[in-house]
Amino acid sequence: MQKRIRDFGLEIGSLETGRLNKISDVSGVTAGHATIDDGPLKTGVTAILPHQGNVFINKVVGAVHVLNGFGKSVGTIQLEELGAIETPILLTNTLSIGTCTDSLIDYMLEQNPEIGRTTGTVNPVVGECNDMYLNDIRARAVQSSHVREALTSAVTDFHEGGVGAGTGMKCFGLKGGIGSSSRVISYSHGSYTIGVLTLTNFGSLEQLRVNEKRAGHVIKQRLADHSHEPDKGSVIVVVATDLPVSSRQLKRIIKRAGVGLSRCGSYIGNGSGDVIFGFSTANQVPHHSDGQISRFRAIHEEDIDLAFLAAADATEEAVLNSMITAETVTGRDGNTLYSLRTFMEFL
Amino acid sequence: MQKRIRDFGLEIGSLETGRLNKISDVSGVTAGHATIDDGPLKTGVTAILPHQGNVFINKVVGAVHVLNGFGKSVGTIQLEELGAIETPILLTNTLSIGTCTDSLIDYMLEQNPEIGRTTGTVNPVVGECNDMYLNDIRARAVQSSHVREALTSAVTDFHEGGVGAGTGMKCFGLKGGIGSSSRVISYSHGSYTIGVLTLTNFGSLEQLRVNEKRAGHVIKQRLADHSHEPDKGSVIVVVATDLPVSSRQLKRIIKRAGVGLSRCGSYIGNGSGDVIFGFSTANQVPHHSDGQISRFRAIHEEDIDLAFLAAADATEEAVLNSMITAETVTGRDGNTLYSLRTFMEFL
Amino acid sequence: MQKRIRDFGLEIGSLETGRLNKISDVSGVTAGHATIDDGPLKTGVTAILPHQGNVFINKVVGAVHVLNGFGKSVGTIQLEELGAIETPILLTNTLSIGTCTDSLIDYMLEQNPEIGRTTGTVNPVVGECNDMYLNDIRARAVQSSHVREALTSAVTDFHEGGVGAGTGMKCFGLKGGIGSSSRVISYSHGSYTIGVLTLTNFGSLEQLRVNEKRAGHVIKQRLADHSHEPDKGSVIVVVATDLPVSSRQLKRIIKRAGVGLSRCGSYIGNGSGDVIFGFSTANQVPHHSDGQISRFRAIHEEDIDLAFLAAADATEEAVLNSMITAETVTGRDGNTLYSLRTFMEFL
Amino acid sequence: MQKRIRDFGLEIGSLETGRLNKISDVSGVTAGHATIDDGPLKTGVTAILPHQGNVFINKVVGAVHVLNGFGKSVGTIQLEELGAIETPILLTNTLSIGTCTDSLIDYMLEQNPEIGRTTGTVNPVVGECNDMYLNDIRARAVQSSHVREALTSAVTDFHEGGVGAGTGMKCFGLKGGIGSSSRVISYSHGSYTIGVLTLTNFGSLEQLRVNEKRAGHVIKQRLADHSHEPDKGSVIVVVATDLPVSSRQLKRIIKRAGVGLSRCGSYIGNGSGDVIFGFSTANQVPHHSDGQISRFRAIHEEDIDLAFLAAADATEEAVLNSMITAETVTGRDGNTLYSLRTFMEFL
Repeated sequence: MQKRIRDFGLEIGSLETGRLNKISDVSGVTAGHATIDDGPLKTGVTAILPHQGNVFINKVVGAVHVLNGFGKSVGTIQLEELGAIETPILLTNTLSIGTCTDSLIDYMLEQNPEIGRTTGTVNPVVGECNDMYLNDIRARAVQSSHVREALTSAVTDFHEGGVGAGTGMKCFGLKGGIGSSSRVISYSHGSYTIGVLTLTNFGSLEQLRVNEKRAGHVIKQRLADHSHEPDKGSVIVVVATDLPVSSRQLKRIIKRAGVGLSRCGSYIGNGSGDVIFGFSTANQVPHHSDGQISRFRAIHEEDIDLAFLAAADATEEAVLNSMITAETVTGRDGNTLYSLRTFMEFL
Repeated sequence: MQKRIRDFGLEIGSLETGRLNKISDVSGVTAGHATIDDGPLKTGVTAILPHQGNVFINKVVGAVHVLNGFGKSVGTIQLEELGAIETPILLTNTLSIGTCTDSLIDYMLEQNPEIGRTTGTVNPVVGECNDMYLNDIRARAVQSSHVREALTSAVTDFHEGGVGAGTGMKCFGLKGGIGSSSRVISYSHGSYTIGVLTLTNFGSLEQLRVNEKRAGHVIKQRLADHSHEPDKGSVIVVVATDLPVSSRQLKRIIKRAGVGLSRCGSYIGNGSGDVIFGFSTANQVPHHSDGQISRFRAIHEEDIDLAFLAAADATEEAVLNSMITAETVTGRDGNTLYSLRTFMEFL
Repeated sequence: MQKRIRDFGLEIGSLETGRLNKISDVSGVTAGHATIDDGPLKTGVTAILPHQGNVFINKVVGAVHVLNGFGKSVGTIQLEELGAIETPILLTNTLSIGTCTDSLIDYMLEQNPEIGRTTGTVNPVVGECNDMYLNDIRARAVQSSHVREALTSAVTDFHEGGVGAGTGMKCFGLKGGIGSSSRVISYSHGSYTIGVLTLTNFGSLEQLRVNEKRAGHVIKQRLADHSHEPDKGSVIVVVATDLPVSSRQLKRIIKRAGVGLSRCGSYIGNGSGDVIFGFSTANQVPHHSDGQISRFRAIHEEDIDLAFLAAADATEEAVLNSMITAETVTGRDGNTLYSLRTFMEFL
Repeated sequence: MQKRIRDFGLEIGSLETGRLNKISDVSGVTAGHATIDDGPLKTGVTAILPHQGNVFINKVVGAVHVLNGFGKSVGTIQLEELGAIETPILLTNTLSIGTCTDSLIDYMLEQNPEIGRTTGTVNPVVGECNDMYLNDIRARAVQSSHVREALTSAVTDFHEGGVGAGTGMKCFGLKGGIGSSSRVISYSHGSYTIGVLTLTNFGSLEQLRVNEKRAGHVIKQRLADHSHEPDKGSVIVVVATDLPVSSRQLKRIIKRAGVGLSRCGSYIGNGSGDVIFGFSTANQVPHHSDGQISRFRAIHEEDIDLAFLAAADATEEAVLNSMITAETVTGRDGNTLYSLRTFMEFL
């Protein structure tokens, strides 16, 4: 059992969390990791599965929001055009996007023999952050087998911290990685879940806020750190929900992840590729037409504020969970990043 | 009865037109004009009503696409964000957007006493082109009464050519104005209409194509015109449909109006504010929530190609109709624009 | 002398402010107000002048970022296309955008007799928020004379709080209005100023943070306020700088105003039209071509982080200044909004 | 010597072409191919080099425009954010984007040992079309060696037609592939070149226009083809220039490639991923800051119309060149595509 930010008595916002307080509280969603931790190799792959069926045949309503485009995420233009996601989402290090894209295509071709024969192609979605501080990123350690491992090991109660794509990541000058959180929102027409998973690799230590405290200042003093390092490195946020929304509404919701990042102390630095992916499992988009008009369900726009707040709060908490669950790590060339946990007694 | 481009034997594409071959073939849609034609004052207002009820209370799914943003259209950011239109659409000259916006707000406040009291405000949609060649645009001739006249005189079988907002417009060096066209598209699940209305004020004569003929070259020779004037002046396209689509799909459809403009000879000149508005009457968006999940109908994405082709073809024909129905006009300072009709015998 | 947030001992971030700690610390920038305060009429106009010359003839590099498009701001599409601002920027209430647009056109026509004759038209820029809680917005109190008053009264040491367009605004359930702040950023190649002016009318009280304290919770308790009101109402942010940047870089900088809003407690509510305008005075864009290639100066992208942080910090402080300088006001139907100042002793 | 469209007496527009009438008329630009033509394997890679130096160290001003996002191009979000291209541009088949991305990263790492050590990462740019009609795309024939071959064989006088990435492509129901063209535009301040290279795999035969003639109708009759196939398959356009422009201006210019596509008969079909990349060699963007303000040159916006027209005309001609230079090909499962050349005598 990993100790998470709530185990330290901190609560973000006033909305209830889901059962696991993870993205997988959205029914059907799972996540899996392949972790590479071998001397100067500190990297890996994380996979998020929107549902447990064939995602190509039954796509999910999707959206992407580029908060800051200094990043190399793959699959964004088709997602923006068609408002649907048709593969699992992979996260990895920046220089492994080619391998992950290629391996995800392999995986999709296996599952769907009609691709490239009787139907068109497939749009792989891959996000990335640059883990070069701890990881020998030039070694290109991620292989096809890691992608397969991440995809096939996906579960609801996945690990957080320095695992999978998060193995080598750095957040606010401390150890970052994978973190997750969720919120339940209730209307007269039902209750729904907003789940968030973040791959955190952004922020400068002096800007770090932990639940409205300037934690970064305290930690810098303890570390006798007088540097001014820029906010760089990137963050990928994945937002899942079972709320019935159009891709337009979904895009509005996932934009509010930026609020959560800001509250943690990000000013969305120049070098930070901040990309938010989202999907809703409430309306599935069939690959094949049945020759009929489709029917979709969507909330009234007046209902959307709760979802905005949930996305902001869950993102803030997911970032903190990514940091608090990560262990202190020494990577390539002796570079060391401390766990936020080390400093919690002083905050 | 105005003679239109088909009366000269030209057919654009192979899809069937609607009954009137106008935007009003989409059930519920009407258009009205207020024409100001008084010496050097050659301008006016055109209003398009998406349906005959209260558009604020029952909004229509909407979209906007800015092909070239050298223009001053009003109401675009909310339309982009919310995917809905909640007022009639007004067209006018560039310097009258303030008056038209203000008068449209008046009209909406009258119809909806709750605006600004128990509910929020209203998002007026106004498009414009610059008619300064024929019109003394600095005289600011458009008054509130003209807006009211355009709104209250809207009919299905409206006039085209140099009327309403089109009174002073110039298109491919000839007389432009208001033109319209429509297409019927059929699927296994039903037949639907795509209607287009254009306010044409763009293009340079030498680029003019009429149904794939380089008409501009011929006309320039006859006019002994050796000038090279730029493609400037703007065009507003309004696309209406009863096809069930999301705002995302609608935006994809209306983008194809740009294909129609290109086929006429536009290269989307620097100074041309080319803005396309669209709405679908198939799904209405109620202003007030009933506390339930809404249900929307939408075509499968595979069905959308026919709508793309219809939007392209109807836009091309609407542009030609705006020119062929317009009379030769002499405006301010003796500036004269010829009707395309004058040259049809040579094409 | 109005008491501002620093007079209460609060400092936002660690960057230095400019001399006045206002947008007018950017050389050449001034702001003016016309305030309408007459019983249930609580509204007005604020004008920001990018420089003291003819802005149409010497445009400033400009940018706009729509954080949330539930708003009616005018002039955005041309600003996005051409990356230049060619008029003063006006702020007002939502239903007065037509009047302000029209009056700003008048003002520009007077200054530039060639508009609509030998050169094209002009793109007025107008932002708005909805002040209907305190103001009888349906009365449409703003007249052309108010626009003129705001434009001609512009100074560097302008008032803040419930003045001009801010007269009737509401922010985090308290009195909002006009607030400003600035930061100085230094490089090896020189020192530059980032100035911000905000028209604040957004946020829900329970979300209010004042310099990382959950002030909203405290104030709600003191007010015995148990309501859950949504974050709605809008905010307009104007960012000025003398940093040499392209419009692309400027757009990146002004996006970080959203970080400042988030830190104050905004989750960018559905009904909040959050629009950010920016301009740089460092490169002017001449209306008339001299037939030569233009030369522009721009910082290296690596230098941009300081400007991001400055925009975030100055926006946060400008919001707080708008609230702390505003007096408690009772407007239409006895609606009352308290000044944040009333509660400062408890925070 | 390949026979091109001008060798059949057709001229597109009235602007002069460059010396080779290819994208490489822009000084420094070269293109290379790796062609895979082995039974049912009909595919390959094409590389465009913006200049002959280290593109990572001396980036070129860049832009991307997504005309229709049903595509998987890689590298778009950073290009949009930063307005610069820092690698050669690769074109390939849809399912080989992973391999090409990965191999392009390899190539860049080799040239730049500081990537991932003392400086950040690199943004590979890869475009794609789906060649599944002729090519056994599931075989994933493209290997790292092909990428290297394309990159190292780049020349100014490269081949067109069914070569490189164009080997298996289909355009307007006929054989597509690689085509190129250029235009020279002259101002008082100098002469500049706009060059275009297209990878053509779009359009339905019945829509084909060849220089304003409905060639598709004629060809369908000759083929006794009564099918109605949709416009699908994608096109990638690369626009190069030595005109001094900002990335904003460049984006405006490359958008006009859509005009050229429209004139050929595209209605930008649903399934067609139409993506346009552009770069200007006139202003280079150094990777490393020298601590100074950079100086950029840019044309006055009034000068931009000629560049618009050049981009439209050169794109139209590049598409026709891709078709006229391609040979008739039989690919997987006996699928055959005819060369446009076969039908030129009937047009």
